[in-house]
Amino acid sequence: MSIKVGILGYGNLGRGVEKAVKASNDMELVGVFSRRDPATVKVDSGAATYHVDELSKMKDQIDVLIICGGSATDLPEMTPKYAADFNVIDSFDTHANIPTHFANVDAAAKAGGKIGIISCGWDPGMFSLNRLYAHSVLPGGKDYTFWGNGVSQGHSDAIRRIEGVVDARQYTVPVPEALDKVRAGENPELTTREKHTRVCYVVAEEGADKARIEQKIVTMPNYFADYDTTVNFITAEEMKRNHSGLPHGGSVIYSGTTGGTTNADGSTNTLNTHVIEYSLKLDSNPEFTGSVLVAYARAAARMNQAGESGAKTVFDVAPALLSPLSGDEIRAHML
Amino acid sequence: MSIKVGILGYGNLGRGVEKAVKASNDMELVGVFSRRDPATVKVDSGAATYHVDELSKMKDQIDVLIICGGSATDLPEMTPKYAADFNVIDSFDTHANIPTHFANVDAAAKAGGKIGIISCGWDPGMFSLNRLYAHSVLPGGKDYTFWGNGVSQGHSDAIRRIEGVVDARQYTVPVPEALDKVRAGENPELTTREKHTRVCYVVAEEGADKARIEQKIVTMPNYFADYDTTVNFITAEEMKRNHSGLPHGGSVIYSGTTGGTTNADGSTNTLNTHVIEYSLKLDSNPEFTGSVLVAYARAAARMNQAGESGAKTVFDVAPALLSPLSGDEIRAHML
Repeated sequence: MSIKVGILGYGNLGRGVEKAVKASNDMELVGVFSRRDPATVKVDSGAATYHVDELSKMKDQIDVLIICGGSATDLPEMTPKYAADFNVIDSFDTHANIPTHFANVDAAAKAGGKIGIISCGWDPGMFSLNRLYAHSVLPGGKDYTFWGNGVSQGHSDAIRRIEGVVDARQYTVPVPEALDKVRAGENPELTTREKHTRVCYVVAEEGADKARIEQKIVTMPNYFADYDTTVNFITAEEMKRNHSGLPHGGSVIYSGTTGGTTNADGSTNTLNTHVIEYSLKLDSNPEFTGSVLVAYARAAARMNQAGESGAKTVFDVAPALLSPLSGDEIRAHML
Repeated sequence: MSIKVGILGYGNLGRGVEKAVKASNDMELVGVFSRRDPATVKVDSGAATYHVDELSKMKDQIDVLIICGGSATDLPEMTPKYAADFNVIDSFDTHANIPTHFANVDAAAKAGGKIGIISCGWDPGMFSLNRLYAHSVLPGGKDYTFWGNGVSQGHSDAIRRIEGVVDARQYTVPVPEALDKVRAGENPELTTREKHTRVCYVVAEEGADKARIEQKIVTMPNYFADYDTTVNFITAEEMKRNHSGLPHGGSVIYSGTTGGTTNADGSTNTLNTHVIEYSLKLDSNPEFTGSVLVAYARAAARMNQAGESGAKTVFDVAPALLSPLSGDEIRAHML
């Protein structure tokens, strides 16, 4: 029996989830739910569209609801709201607010006897898993997370809000020397500026003051002031031709040691260094993120079927629950 | 209350486990158990030593028994035997026999109400996890596992059994061109010879026929015949100076796609490729493997405390169970 999935929100991420559901033989897309008039929502796969208010009548038709909203205002309200009636998945990524969001979803999901898996994706998500596995295996080491090369949508949006800017794309780029030091197990202390640079492509309005726009960008607090930022002005055609994708990626690198301790007889063990690296090179950030959400939707359905409820994160989900294959199959082919 | 650990078997791996237990604040080493006369077993940390037969009297003193034996003959017998009375961990790595071993441990552990986590380490173990996560997130892709640079102890032993050989060390080395193709997401078909080369350092007996030894090595079935193998004869001093460590490592690289499907209106989505890589660079193979076993020992104690029993693998263990930190702490600092 296939897992029946609903998608709430139909932007880039919702479209990524739609493709991932279609690529999963054990899943079925019930429909796309939106705050917009459903007649105006054109769904790529031709799946049914509904107004979000219809959800309250469809509790029995959906096994898992994947909520594809923004972390700033959508998810803090939506995920707890729907966790009372549905198994839900979200990609909440405001790190500082995760404890509050977790508590809110936990209360709602427990009251409703449902599962809510929050903060799925790749960071938080796959990167978090790799930080946890590494810290657990080699306690006392140090983790480094590098992002890029890839498009940061939040930073691109920030540039677009500057007067005189028609369009913008911002790439986050890890500094090669910093990566080299971390990969060598040197555990360096690195400032924000030493870890990443920011490269911007900007289409300016005809006659706009480019020097002013560049100055506005490179001095923008939180977004750019702490980084070495390069601004390139290009044409709308160049933007479309060379920058229409949403690639991203990055690495979690951990280095820790074993040995180095003193023995009962006073001799000292060799100090051994181990470097663990997990890296992603993604052609499409929203499609990969959507694929992660769908794997966790499978786990949510199974956990709830097994009688579990409450808020969960990727840390609480046994890896086997993510696979459509049986325990026998994964042990035989992947162990 | 700390987790009380016993170590059964005291070779390189047992020593690695010992160091990892010592590095874990929430664990305590009860003792080292051996088939040898305990008076002859010199334990680095000064922990107590016991004959293996003493285990039957110490069921209440040990929360988890970590079995550090060989996969060929020790573990198939030992792990099911002790799983009846103890939560156990092993590093069973004969891939073809995992289903049988799992079934044997499962029956014993269920009968005794204990947990037995088999095939922990890095391959099987951390590498298996990365194969499973990648296949689950991006179904239909392809995984590649490369080992090295690192010392293969089984291959080194095989060389030592050749007449005229005093000592030997064999390094497994991934072929850079193969790695490049896989990292580029090309999903190449690769033969055994195209993936890895083997580099051997051999100390020969005085007056031994080196040409014969080299010929014996490079034509040895299963071990070397399918590889490009280089043999270097060195002195015993060079062996000690340059090859006394047991470094190892490798990479699991997975590439899969999203998109590429046809929409309801006949248009086609872009095919996007994603490459996931997990890599290890380990100064000491047995110490890293031992550290993984100890993290899973923590999980075994917790799972049994929660009322679970039976055989498990890394696939069945929720990542949070590996960490000494609380759920609140890992969500706040690692998610």
